[in-house]
This record gives sequence, structure tokens and C-alpha cells, in this order.
Amino acid sequence: MPELRKDPVIGRWVIISTERGKRPTDFPPEPRGRKSKLCPFCPTNESSTPPEVYSIRQNGSGPDSPGWTLRVIPNKFPALRIEGDLNREGEGIFDKMNGVGAHEVIVETPSHELDLVNLENGEVKNVIIAYRERIIDLKRDPRFKYIMIFKNQGEAAGASLEHSHSQLIATPIVPKRVLEEIAGAKQYYEYKERCIYCDIVKQEISQDIRVITQSDKFLAIAPFASRFPFEAWVLPKEHDSCFEHINDNDAESLSRMLKETLKRLSTALSDPPFNYVIHSAPVENGCEKEYHWHIEIMPKLTKVAGFEWGTGFYINPTAPEDAAGFLKEIKID
Amino acid sequence: MPELRKDPVIGRWVIISTERGKRPTDFPPEPRGRKSKLCPFCPTNESSTPPEVYSIRQNGSGPDSPGWTLRVIPNKFPALRIEGDLNREGEGIFDKMNGVGAHEVIVETPSHELDLVNLENGEVKNVIIAYRERIIDLKRDPRFKYIMIFKNQGEAAGASLEHSHSQLIATPIVPKRVLEEIAGAKQYYEYKERCIYCDIVKQEISQDIRVITQSDKFLAIAPFASRFPFEAWVLPKEHDSCFEHINDNDAESLSRMLKETLKRLSTALSDPPFNYVIHSAPVENGCEKEYHWHIEIMPKLTKVAGFEWGTGFYINPTAPEDAAGFLKEIKID
Repeated sequence: MPELRKDPVIGRWVIISTERGKRPTDFPPEPRGRKSKLCPFCPTNESSTPPEVYSIRQNGSGPDSPGWTLRVIPNKFPALRIEGDLNREGEGIFDKMNGVGAHEVIVETPSHELDLVNLENGEVKNVIIAYRERIIDLKRDPRFKYIMIFKNQGEAAGASLEHSHSQLIATPIVPKRVLEEIAGAKQYYEYKERCIYCDIVKQEISQDIRVITQSDKFLAIAPFASRFPFEAWVLPKEHDSCFEHINDNDAESLSRMLKETLKRLSTALSDPPFNYVIHSAPVENGCEKEYHWHIEIMPKLTKVAGFEWGTGFYINPTAPEDAAGFLKEIKID
Repeated sequence: MPELRKDPVIGRWVIISTERGKRPTDFPPEPRGRKSKLCPFCPTNESSTPPEVYSIRQNGSGPDSPGWTLRVIPNKFPALRIEGDLNREGEGIFDKMNGVGAHEVIVETPSHELDLVNLENGEVKNVIIAYRERIIDLKRDPRFKYIMIFKNQGEAAGASLEHSHSQLIATPIVPKRVLEEIAGAKQYYEYKERCIYCDIVKQEISQDIRVITQSDKFLAIAPFASRFPFEAWVLPKEHDSCFEHINDNDAESLSRMLKETLKRLSTALSDPPFNYVIHSAPVENGCEKEYHWHIEIMPKLTKVAGFEWGTGFYINPTAPEDAAGFLKEIKID
């Protein structure tokens, strides 16, 4: 019998369609191959991107020249523009405003050949630090209400360039999905006077059927109401609403946990396309007690179809308990 | 400057990224080819599906044998099961219930070679009638709170079988997305004492910049806050909350409008994969005055990526005014 499960925060229902019960080998790998045309993210091509806004450089090299190990640049084709005011206005019954915001690219490594999962721990830590520093910087601009970090890897997951990178978008409004998450967390807090994510962390550790891996500071789970097969979340065990509060030690610990989780996914599923998104509190927080930042990793193994578009309710052919079981058993170095 | 637009009903914001401004030819067609393995939806293979629950037959042939022009069957691999009770229960802080529901397939034509857009008007009308009849029948089962009709065409849009078909899923809860739409429509009604969709129909006809085509009874538009390039909605001009109230004459008129809209999309975009979803009121209605049924057609031309997953806010590279302009000018027979 398929099971309906409700996401405890957002109230979204998911169908765990156990009869279709899919194992890792039921998802054939997407064809991938490195193409060889000029890559704007490779060293020596720095001039083909807008000037860098942040970089980590080992040898005192100048900006927008080779010698970096990580580089953050404005997106050349931004979804939102940094200049200008919002100018909210109506058009009859419709509402609109200017697309003001920031859209940056975090180039995670100078190597065109390596994915995030192949980097050294220290390099992944630098990626985490770069996320933190860019958020802290952009929070100073009062026009931005939300700052989202995400990564698309693989063409099927929406990556248009193959050189390993993440993105940051700062938006002039708090997106609806984020507001819903916060509203759900606040509702729980009002009733229980506890953070719902802290309760999830506690229950997952004690039940130990959806845990993928854990360390002192972080927990990786297949969430109870997983929308997608092999969906994985990484949560800090200690309560904090904002990702950018992370200190250097915890960034080190997170980089190990993120890398290990991605490694388990890439080994189990032959390097699948995926997205991850850092869920963190809005700039004008107001939910310090109730919200708890975390990372949601979504391998792209199934197609989102009409039913999901119409209902916002997902059909997932792999029970999260099975997914966690498979991922846990993977042998990694 | 990109523009942020708000869906007036659901409150979802969309980025209309005009600088990426994409024309139909910027979306290369997906490779498609008819495969030749045994198709369970073809005539003479009736025994490879569960017994039919509805059919249109011209010549008095018996059920589950050839001679049909349209056939409705339970899904062989249903996402939800027709038998049993909900048994709502908790697991610590989590909630779940049995996946009770109906999952049916509407095989739109006996021909393996034809898509919905290639059928005769009378055949498309039969598809509309079949949707209506199946909804009316399933509404009698008190366990079902919502009945959704949708179509996935093309592998990239989630179709696993290429023989032209639609699907119906009856769910034991009203999905969140539907509740949100109704809540938005009710909020507008409370303030204005008018149906928001009726106001959209009126404004779109008078502005005439997003109209794709219209008839006496129906209007096809590129909606103001289109999430996807070339997204198209078909709305009845007269107010009605429920699709299944449609009479035979209006079904004829709708079939012409739906077919014409799909034909414009398939001609402009080289037969793209797409989804459509009929948005209609829940079984226990309660929103007769405020809600207005309609069909949302979403060509699958871009990939949904991390930003959309995290925010629920879409980046659309084609302004709906441009999309409507392109689609309107298409020459069709």
C-alpha cells in the first residue's frame, strides 16, 4: 500500500509509492561528458566574466587573473539586476516590480575536471566560507530581503556550464516557499515551544532509520516526507536560524559532512545530476527561535510531471528508509 | 531590466527575465521517436491492462476488446490504491496515512501514431467527455476529496508510455497547491465581491496583449505571471467552479480551443514535451462563487533548478506578451 506522508514544516503531502519501490540501479545514469569549448570559469579566461567580488588566492596574485583557488563573480546573464529601485506598480489587477537583486556565481575550483565531491576537504570548506562571506556582505544592502545559495550540477538539473559552481541570488522579497517554511516552524513553536527542526534531529537520531551519516555537529538524513528518491538533508545538530552564523570550525565540519553525503549519492547513483539549496532565515530575521537552517539535496532521478505541477504533491518511488539504508552501506574512502 | 510579477491568485512571484528573451527557435526540439515494443494501450493488447472502467465504442464491441475509440482503465502501477481506509496515524512528530485513491488512464485514441493535437475535433471532444464522466463517477466515493485530470506528453514531461493518454488521480486530501489557489481566490472575493478569474478574463480581453486565441465561450492566454516560457491557460469566459459541470456543447467548444492552443504550441515549438492540468474545485466545493476552473498548459522547455526548488519562484526567459505574440501569428489549418 502506498503511504501518504506530510512534511511537518510546510504541510506538503508526498506519496511514498512503495510498490514502485526503486533501488539505486533502477535509475540509469544520465550521459555526461566534458565538452571542450572555451570555459569562462577556467583560469586564464578571467576576463570573460564580470570582475570578481571575492576570491581565495594562495600566492598574492591580483584580482581577475589566474592564481585563485575559488572565485566569486556576478552572473554575466543575471536573473536579477543589482542596479535600481523596485518601483512596485500595478497593471490593472496585476502587480509587478523591477527585478532588482544580486546574482553571483561561486566558482568552486580552478579545475574544469573536478566536481565539488572530488575536491579536498579544505577546498570544500573554502566554498562554505565563500557562501558565508558573500551572504554577510550582501545583507548590508537594505533592498535585499532574502539571500539564497544553491547549486545545480548536471544539465538535467539545470546547470548550463559544466565547470563546478554554485550560485547566490539575493531577492527583493522573501519567496513564498520560504515564508511557508517559517510559518510552519512558527506554528509548531507556538504550540510546543520547541524548534521543529531540533525535534526532527532528535527523533531521527533516536529512530535511526533515516540517518545517512552523522558527526558531532551535523546530521544527514533522508527526510520523512522526501519528495524525490534519495533526497537528503544536512542539518546542524545545534539550533541556529542562519547559515551565515557558521564559524570556521563548524564550516570545516560541515564541509566533511556535505562532501561525504554527496560522495554517497554519487557512488550509489553513478554521479547523478542534482540540486542543493541552503535554507536559511530571511535577512530581517524574526524567526531566531523557530527556524533552523539546513541544506536540502535533491538528486534529479525522476521527472516532475503534471500531477506534481497541479497539486504540489510529489510521487516518490523510493521510501526514505530504503534510500538511507542504501546510502549508509556505500563504501567510501 | 528583468521584471518581477506576482500571480494574483496564488501570490507566487515570477522573474520575467527579458534580457534572456527567448524566441521559439531558442528552444531546440527534444529528440522523439516512436519505439516499437508492445504497447499496452494499443488495440488487441487490452488484456495487458486492468479491465476498463469507461469506453467509447462505435460498433457495439464488448469491453476489453478492440473496437473502441477511447478507453479508460485503472493505472496498472497506481500511485494510490482504490481499496482500503485512510488510517491516519502519527510516527513521533510525523504524520502519515494510507495511500488510498484512484489512479486512472484515459487512452485518447486507438492509434499509436497520433497525439491529442492530431485527433479530429470529435475525438478531442470525447476526451473531454470522458474526463467529465470519470470525475462525476468518482465524486460519489466519499473518501476522495480532490480529483485531478492531467496529461504528460513526451518523456521530458514525465510520460512513460508514448501512446497518447491522460491521467486522473483522486486523492483523499485536498492538495496544498489547490488549497492555496482557493484561498487566494477567496481573499480577492472577500475584498472585491467578484471572482478573480472573471476579472482576469475581462482584463485580458480588454488589454489584448496576452491573448493567444478566443471563441464565444473560451479564452486562451499566456498568463501575466507565467512560470514557464510559452505557458498557456484556457479559461471558460462564463463563471463556473467545476470542470465537470461542462455540457456537451461547451465540451465541443472547449475541444476546439484546446486543440487549437496545442496546435499553436506544437507548430511554434516543434512538438515540445508538455504537461497540462485541469484546475477545478474540490469535491466538497465551498467555493462556487470564488473559484473558476481552467486548464494550465506548461511546455517543458527549460529545466527547473535549485533556485526554483528553494524559493518556489520561477525564472522565465520569455515574456508572456512575446509568447502570446508568437503563438497568435502561427498559421494553422
